[in-house]
Amino acid sequence: MTASSPGVSAEPYDAVDVIRAKRDRRELADPQIDWVVDAYTRGAVADEQMSALAMAILLNGMTQRETARWTTAMIASGERLDFSSLRTPGGGRRPTADKHSTGGVGDKITLPLAPLVAAFGVAVPQLSGRGLGHTGGTLDKLESIPGWRAQLGNDEMMSQLERVGAVICAAGAGLAPADRKLYALRDVTGTVEAIPLIASSIMSKKIAEGTGALVLDVKVGSGAFMKDEARARELAETMVALGQDAGVSTVALLTDMETPLGLTAGNAIEVEESLEVLAGGGPEDVVELTVRLAEEMLAAAGVHSADPARALQDGRAMDVWRKMVAAQGGDPDAPLPRAKESETLYAPADGVLVGLDALSVGVAAWRLGAGRARKEDAVQAGAGVRLHAKPGASVRAGEPLMTLLTDTPERFSRAKEALEGAVTIAPAGSRPARRLILDRIA
Amino acid sequence: MTASSPGVSAEPYDAVDVIRAKRDRRELADPQIDWVVDAYTRGAVADEQMSALAMAILLNGMTQRETARWTTAMIASGERLDFSSLRTPGGGRRPTADKHSTGGVGDKITLPLAPLVAAFGVAVPQLSGRGLGHTGGTLDKLESIPGWRAQLGNDEMMSQLERVGAVICAAGAGLAPADRKLYALRDVTGTVEAIPLIASSIMSKKIAEGTGALVLDVKVGSGAFMKDEARARELAETMVALGQDAGVSTVALLTDMETPLGLTAGNAIEVEESLEVLAGGGPEDVVELTVRLAEEMLAAAGVHSADPARALQDGRAMDVWRKMVAAQGGDPDAPLPRAKESETLYAPADGVLVGLDALSVGVAAWRLGAGRARKEDAVQAGAGVRLHAKPGASVRAGEPLMTLLTDTPERFSRAKEALEGAVTIAPAGSRPARRLILDRIA
Repeated sequence: MTASSPGVSAEPYDAVDVIRAKRDRRELADPQIDWVVDAYTRGAVADEQMSALAMAILLNGMTQRETARWTTAMIASGERLDFSSLRTPGGGRRPTADKHSTGGVGDKITLPLAPLVAAFGVAVPQLSGRGLGHTGGTLDKLESIPGWRAQLGNDEMMSQLERVGAVICAAGAGLAPADRKLYALRDVTGTVEAIPLIASSIMSKKIAEGTGALVLDVKVGSGAFMKDEARARELAETMVALGQDAGVSTVALLTDMETPLGLTAGNAIEVEESLEVLAGGGPEDVVELTVRLAEEMLAAAGVHSADPARALQDGRAMDVWRKMVAAQGGDPDAPLPRAKESETLYAPADGVLVGLDALSVGVAAWRLGAGRARKEDAVQAGAGVRLHAKPGASVRAGEPLMTLLTDTPERFSRAKEALEGAVTIAPAGSRPARRLILDRIA
Repeated sequence: MTASSPGVSAEPYDAVDVIRAKRDRRELADPQIDWVVDAYTRGAVADEQMSALAMAILLNGMTQRETARWTTAMIASGERLDFSSLRTPGGGRRPTADKHSTGGVGDKITLPLAPLVAAFGVAVPQLSGRGLGHTGGTLDKLESIPGWRAQLGNDEMMSQLERVGAVICAAGAGLAPADRKLYALRDVTGTVEAIPLIASSIMSKKIAEGTGALVLDVKVGSGAFMKDEARARELAETMVALGQDAGVSTVALLTDMETPLGLTAGNAIEVEESLEVLAGGGPEDVVELTVRLAEEMLAAAGVHSADPARALQDGRAMDVWRKMVAAQGGDPDAPLPRAKESETLYAPADGVLVGLDALSVGVAAWRLGAGRARKEDAVQAGAGVRLHAKPGASVRAGEPLMTLLTDTPERFSRAKEALEGAVTIAPAGSRPARRLILDRIA
């Protein structure tokens, strides 16, 4: 019913042959992978062909070799940054380290973490994204700071790294354009959840960005992209191998996302909580994860015997934060926006709070206006959910459990729908078990 | 990393949800299938979404219920023909019967078959296609008859069925437009080979066409779309069930396509061979299959105790053929076009011809100009391969085995490449085993 053309073509491969190979569980050859990624980027392979290939990859998998080659081909589609000219005060080569989180609810860790690590002389070139769906975006959070801008040129980024040591900004359009195009396609074709494609999407940008060390925070649980620990581990192992292959010192932590991180999920309220951490306070889980990730980044960058917990206490991290925000036009002393309206939810019974579902809180914050449904939507700086209790806390009937925040009160009802069944209160004496850090993969 | 929009949409379903359901091996609900086929036809589901769904269907399958609903949805995308007003000379309702072949090399059976069945008073509304790749197309073959035209309006078709009893013409654009669009997409996305989609593509057109009885000739072997008997059987069973569900009396034969049918593969040369059969002669295998399919069509249409073999001998089928060709503007007495150039290949050794590979002969005929690589290409009326011996024949070194025909002699070399290894000659006394009809599925 069909057959390949006997004629000649300017292309060395036929997209249908590549699709069929993966469909029929054959391993793709290096030149096939190089070609299909490049040809897709320049439009010689059509969207409908790439989406069929992506579905075949999702269902039939790729070997680590194929995934590594796919990653390399995506890196080759764009520019690569180079931080090798960065110098320490003593004139040596300055190490670089970056962190990537697969996304969760209340995950503001990048905000205190980047200045904390930079406080030890390691440059942190943190390229970040915006939120889509129920997980927040680091850039959306920072944009609630008056004046702060996410878009920097490569020269500005380099100069800020030299002067301040840390930068959190949007990835430029020049890095892995193949990934940008492919990600948009996967989003509308049900092919986001392919581990080889997730791994190569994340790692192509991080490797092209030129960081020397990378720590991956792979979230597991209801509020995470990976609900299941086995799949999260597979993703982490795939990414660590890709990083090591590319000469980037890479480590992954598997961390819990059954419950939101900290007591806030939103934008300005997460900046506020980050400032508490930088001031030596803040919720225990946020502090624990920030310190642990900082230790991993410093170790991966070759800096040992550092004490990041102390640098939160003594103001060194806060000093870097203030310079970092100011360098990008932000006023670190300006008051943060607040939501116009609020509604508080109360505990229905006495007992111990043993469950607070991350996905429900994330969807509620999203529906309140903290997140976006489409890339082109704006977010509300003040919207979100502020928690008054975390699992483990004793509660009494009628005590406040959480406050919903929005500028648009018609959103309260759908946010509350998302929260139905999200809270579990058990009889007094119950103890919820939570391990924040589930595993380390190196 | 992604999530469905909390907003409202004019569409009752989200394409990504439907894709994910099939990706995750869930059964699609009737309204989901109705929606996705309809929305794709009107452009609300994009090509890249449908191709991802098609790949998921190919790899994860569909149940018979899903396939039946998919077929119904494709039928609903267009018009349905209705032959219930056709009358017998006695005033009764005239039965209709059609045949569909999944395509093979040298498969000209429709040409003698349609007039043969019509000779018994059964109306044969045979909607046919053009060739793509190594299998020929019935319309391409008939178009080698000077003046003959494939395109008829619905009224012309009905009037010809009343007057002549048989029509072979192109399917109008109004029948199952969803299938037309989906087939073109599958062709470029490596998703042709999905049995539920093949079955629904064929059956949606046949059911919409309105035939009362249908005989399916499902080819098996190197020159067929299905190389493998188990998959051919699965396709046949799926289609028979779809036909019966829709109230069409449906039977399938599994027939051999390891070796070409008859002694010709091309266009005009296949018409010539069909005329030999209609004149009571012709190659044994073509006669056997024509008669057997005629018996099945007549039985399925409720006509028993007919003797189609006799109607080939006594000229009744030829009479209908001449009227049928003339009704569509063709001159049944005009000389057929001949290729300008020929090259004959000779037996390399004495022995018995035991193998003559159908795919090789089909690709050679295609490369000589009998077939097309793209839908918009023209075919050469005179091009093709004429065989001088079939498996079972004794041959002597230096005797002609086949003659290649083309208007463009630069094509000989690539045609001969396709034929390398296609011929197997065994020592005298060997006997090739060929069963032409492998099974019957009802």
